[in-house]
Amino acid sequence: MIYLDHAATTPVRDEVVKEMEPYFIKYFGNPSTYYKIGREAKKAMEKARVQVAELIGAKPEEVIFTNGGTESDNAAIKGIAFKNKKKGNHIITSVIEHPAVDETCKYLEKQGFEVTYLPVYEEGIVRVEDVKSAIRDDTILITIMHANNEIGTIQPIAEIGKIAKENNIAFHSDAVQSVGKIPVDVNDLNVDLLSLSSHKIYGPKGVGALFVRKGVRLEEVIHGGGQEKNLNSGTENVPGMVGLGKACEIAKNELNHNITYLTQLRDDLTDKILNSIEKSYLNGDLKRRVPGTVNLRFTGIEGEGLVLLLDGKGICAATGSACSSKKLEASPVLKAIGLEDVDSHGSLRLTFGSENTPEDVDKTVEAIKESVAKLRAMSPIWNKKE
Amino acid sequence: MIYLDHAATTPVRDEVVKEMEPYFIKYFGNPSTYYKIGREAKKAMEKARVQVAELIGAKPEEVIFTNGGTESDNAAIKGIAFKNKKKGNHIITSVIEHPAVDETCKYLEKQGFEVTYLPVYEEGIVRVEDVKSAIRDDTILITIMHANNEIGTIQPIAEIGKIAKENNIAFHSDAVQSVGKIPVDVNDLNVDLLSLSSHKIYGPKGVGALFVRKGVRLEEVIHGGGQEKNLNSGTENVPGMVGLGKACEIAKNELNHNITYLTQLRDDLTDKILNSIEKSYLNGDLKRRVPGTVNLRFTGIEGEGLVLLLDGKGICAATGSACSSKKLEASPVLKAIGLEDVDSHGSLRLTFGSENTPEDVDKTVEAIKESVAKLRAMSPIWNKKE
Repeated sequence: MIYLDHAATTPVRDEVVKEMEPYFIKYFGNPSTYYKIGREAKKAMEKARVQVAELIGAKPEEVIFTNGGTESDNAAIKGIAFKNKKKGNHIITSVIEHPAVDETCKYLEKQGFEVTYLPVYEEGIVRVEDVKSAIRDDTILITIMHANNEIGTIQPIAEIGKIAKENNIAFHSDAVQSVGKIPVDVNDLNVDLLSLSSHKIYGPKGVGALFVRKGVRLEEVIHGGGQEKNLNSGTENVPGMVGLGKACEIAKNELNHNITYLTQLRDDLTDKILNSIEKSYLNGDLKRRVPGTVNLRFTGIEGEGLVLLLDGKGICAATGSACSSKKLEASPVLKAIGLEDVDSHGSLRLTFGSENTPEDVDKTVEAIKESVAKLRAMSPIWNKKE
Repeated sequence: MIYLDHAATTPVRDEVVKEMEPYFIKYFGNPSTYYKIGREAKKAMEKARVQVAELIGAKPEEVIFTNGGTESDNAAIKGIAFKNKKKGNHIITSVIEHPAVDETCKYLEKQGFEVTYLPVYEEGIVRVEDVKSAIRDDTILITIMHANNEIGTIQPIAEIGKIAKENNIAFHSDAVQSVGKIPVDVNDLNVDLLSLSSHKIYGPKGVGALFVRKGVRLEEVIHGGGQEKNLNSGTENVPGMVGLGKACEIAKNELNHNITYLTQLRDDLTDKILNSIEKSYLNGDLKRRVPGTVNLRFTGIEGEGLVLLLDGKGICAATGSACSSKKLEASPVLKAIGLEDVDSHGSLRLTFGSENTPEDVDKTVEAIKESVAKLRAMSPIWNKKE
């Protein structure tokens, strides 16, 4: 199997599973208890918090464990909105956000908030001057993702953060697709809130974290026992937290190596595809993107068909984000960069991980060439074009 | 170590960890994807859904996976409240609910809902006639827990459910402390919604389920990719779900044996304590309670001190629920059954699990006798009483 869908999820690393194991059976205690196995669980949780903090340049006490990236986004965005609704009701976001942000913003619109959805252009990047001109007196939150989940483009977070700070507006970034892949430092990025997810960086599913800058206050979304400073009520998922912590430690150690290595694999594949398949194109900016992500389109075919043929050859690929792959509509991200529906349906997302090899690239290029040819041979659109 | 805090959490069973393992590394796929490892993950998730359904007499499609008992409660209560706010704004609950229900109700009060908190009496049980008389034309939800987390008392859910049904009111029960411990059948209990948690029944932390009867509609609490029929957006925690499924299967198979066995251990301990320690009392009804739970009080001592001394002897016990143990106030549950603060602070919760033995009972009785004597020797209240 050649797995090229690391933006959807990643296998848990052996070292991460090993680190988690003792907390399922041996130190299974509830961290809110006082006896030994409870204290051991608590200690492990706090060690993991340090590991997460160190990956993103935060203080440990600024890291809140959540049940995943989606819940981090919900906690941050609703948390700021409801806490500050007396101050203002305007929110700025972009048209290429993950559904965890986008659907949350749409919900807030129904609750009386006003949301400005900033455009992106052909390169798939929000423009800083657009953010600047969208700011109003009643703007309480800006939420712009760091790296896009479909095309991998990196947004100018540090510059947007600077503007947010100057205007005294809370700034959140969904960094689920950038943490562990490019350097992410909450101070360099000027963010007040930042979401990350464990299963995108070789950690377990069902756990994530939210950076909350000291002094930033949030209304809670989930009510209960008050764990994680009231922001994630419910018995703490200790093995999950330990797994996320270890995954962060590994990501930090391997970051520089992976950036070089994945960029190489990706660029090699991109060049080979664009040079060998006619009417194949790259979606989004070539340079300003996370190392492992490439999004391509092939005139005259359906991405769904391509993914199925590739699956038959043991290659795991995607048409877009797993979170919206069930919907039949064209990807809103590809639409946002100006693609017609027909082109957007002909798109393929490949996302590399550190376990991929140069051989994977060559096999995948061959498989794509064959599959695209096969699909085009059957395609009424392609035949018409010729 | 003698672990007697199974109401706080339980060790994950070996068989459960084994069942989860392949889904961390081998079949790590995102269940929303179409290729093989994604389909395998999806298949495992659906098998787990059947296992959960079978434990509680539900149809698989009525089981929604959540991130834990607290999120099940939030999803159910807020889900009904916001969906039906045009129909009415009155909710009925009790004074002995877990914070996941209680804090959610308090939040809804701030959102304009009216909540009636039904009392319990010395035995720690809500009275059916109180429910009946609390119902109003604008009542949209009744939420009453099945078994209490501190004293273990079982509430008359089936009867309350019957009344709810007659009055066409949605009925939710937090069954986190009863599922896997006593027979729980969603049809016998006449519930529309029922919450359960994995880590209370030897499954992993960070996962739970919500039974939603066919036809019952909920407003979603978390917004995002729409997983779990919109009720738990975010990439599915497949290993967690698989673990919960296996834990449910085991719980079902061992239920009858455990009921007999744990009742024996608990009654044996209760008798020995009450007969050998003067001024020791049982909190809550003796018979109408889950098998493994006993809550005792000892005049003249602090429960905190007792828990610490027991920890020193390798015994894990609690003063009350782990979720409220950080707060210094007296337990609202013990207050609700009529205890003065001083007595409530002298209480000890012991909750047995299937791995406990008759020897554990004897050692624990001895340890409690010694510790109570030691604490009373230092206690100004106790000395004054003599």
